[in-house]
Amino acid sequence: MRMLATLLSTLLATSGLAMSVLAADPPKVKSMQDILDAAPASAWRTLDPDNTLYLQLASGRVVIELAPDFAPAHAANIRALAKGGYWDGLFVIRSQDNYVVQWGEPDEGDPAVKQHRPLGEAKEKLPAEFERSDKGVPFVKLPDSDGWAPEVGFSGGFPVARDPRAGKAWLTHCYGMVGAGRDVDADSSNGTSLYAVIGQSPRMLDRNITVVGRVVQGMELLSVLPRGTGPLGFYEKPEQYVPIQSVKLASQLPENERTPLQLLRTDSAAFSELVESRRNRRDEWYKRPAGHIDLCNVPLPVRKPPTG
Amino acid sequence: MRMLATLLSTLLATSGLAMSVLAADPPKVKSMQDILDAAPASAWRTLDPDNTLYLQLASGRVVIELAPDFAPAHAANIRALAKGGYWDGLFVIRSQDNYVVQWGEPDEGDPAVKQHRPLGEAKEKLPAEFERSDKGVPFVKLPDSDGWAPEVGFSGGFPVARDPRAGKAWLTHCYGMVGAGRDVDADSSNGTSLYAVIGQSPRMLDRNITVVGRVVQGMELLSVLPRGTGPLGFYEKPEQYVPIQSVKLASQLPENERTPLQLLRTDSAAFSELVESRRNRRDEWYKRPAGHIDLCNVPLPVRKPPTG
Repeated sequence: MRMLATLLSTLLATSGLAMSVLAADPPKVKSMQDILDAAPASAWRTLDPDNTLYLQLASGRVVIELAPDFAPAHAANIRALAKGGYWDGLFVIRSQDNYVVQWGEPDEGDPAVKQHRPLGEAKEKLPAEFERSDKGVPFVKLPDSDGWAPEVGFSGGFPVARDPRAGKAWLTHCYGMVGAGRDVDADSSNGTSLYAVIGQSPRMLDRNITVVGRVVQGMELLSVLPRGTGPLGFYEKPEQYVPIQSVKLASQLPENERTPLQLLRTDSAAFSELVESRRNRRDEWYKRPAGHIDLCNVPLPVRKPPTG
Repeated sequence: MRMLATLLSTLLATSGLAMSVLAADPPKVKSMQDILDAAPASAWRTLDPDNTLYLQLASGRVVIELAPDFAPAHAANIRALAKGGYWDGLFVIRSQDNYVVQWGEPDEGDPAVKQHRPLGEAKEKLPAEFERSDKGVPFVKLPDSDGWAPEVGFSGGFPVARDPRAGKAWLTHCYGMVGAGRDVDADSSNGTSLYAVIGQSPRMLDRNITVVGRVVQGMELLSVLPRGTGPLGFYEKPEQYVPIQSVKLASQLPENERTPLQLLRTDSAAFSELVESRRNRRDEWYKRPAGHIDLCNVPLPVRKPPTG
């Protein structure tokens, strides 16, 4: 929009006709859908089936993209757990309003329980992966300030933060982000217990816990789960647990059983145009464009691959 | 926590014993519950029954506090609508993931429908109440920056923003805030169609629509409603609508049928202590206190009045 405004100023300065043209035919404001429809095929990427998790509930499939660039040890462990069928028959055990839903073993962390589900090829202990070096991390900076970090933006489709002075980058707790639950020790997560953010972004968790990916489709299956009435939104009775039919990598399924999805590349021109159109809403409904957007308000578009 | 740190520095500087005392007995970190438990009775306020709306669903009661200091015309109209039984037998008609749920007449805004529900004593047209003069508005400033407004903080229990140069203050779209749906015209809301925020705060709506209050209890009844599959999350079939049994002012009910609630005063010392404890989480689980909090991350505590 800023470019358009400049262009119009130039027109106004150089042409006596510009005013009447403007009055008769105001420039059409592109909707988000207009921007997406105009994006070239190269602006879209396809999910890597080895990096895509299907959390299957009775109500449908939740599709999660893992983030091995930020949490390589956790992503590898989660792959191993999925291949071993670790979560099949386990449960969503927690739903805390305006915070997170969490799934895994109901009794995990209870020292009274000796017999845990076998981990198969997965590891019991992993390093904490709260942040990483920002070297080699692609980064499309959001032009707006953020209160939680020196810089925020996008990297490979994920909302991230960066501290150039410290040379660090990390995934941020926006709506739909998935993290690995842990106990008090920083390195006490191994990916068996996972959570997804279902409310106002709890960014205070950033760099305090390992974020492993993002729900790219099916958030509405998790966000509507009845809230647990125990402390921290844990379900209090086993009959309240929400059964998980299976958690599999997309690559474990034959191709015709996968969910074909494309994601708008966050390093595409279309994405930058989209961000700007959301920073300043110019459609008729909005009376006052904000001139700002928070990292976690930026939509990360997903679509079915076009046919034909 | 800052005061405590200063006290400890003083002890360290003046006493050879301080170090060993500290090593043996680290200062206990107050939890949010500790702060609330220690708050005097005067830190709590009781809801005004004339200013409190009960939205009754089959699943329970949603309690909404109106904000007449910010939206006097809308609050008055909503009171009149409730007294006239306007919403009784109407529906939640929209549930859009990570955005809003909305309730009112299913066909509202459809020019093909001639017969609307009668408004009774309520008015058809109201002024837009997007912002107000900041004169006389109590304001407890949050110490942290905000990307959407020059200043943010709390006023009478509500999250608000302020622009001292423009002399304006307004309610902000945090989780649980309730607003009045409108069409394209700024003054096209009259309070008949209301929405509550159920996701990441859509602050771009601030000063673009009239905010009328806040859900103070029962958000978890709205936030779990199945998401609508139509555009903008509207339900597509009448059988998907979620019936509203009634919407009444607390003052319309006999006292023994009201929900007794107290809210922590946002101008109390306890609230300021709470904000600071959330800006910097010092409990053992957190490895890196953020030193920041966003307006919409600050909890606004509610409790049952203590007995005896």
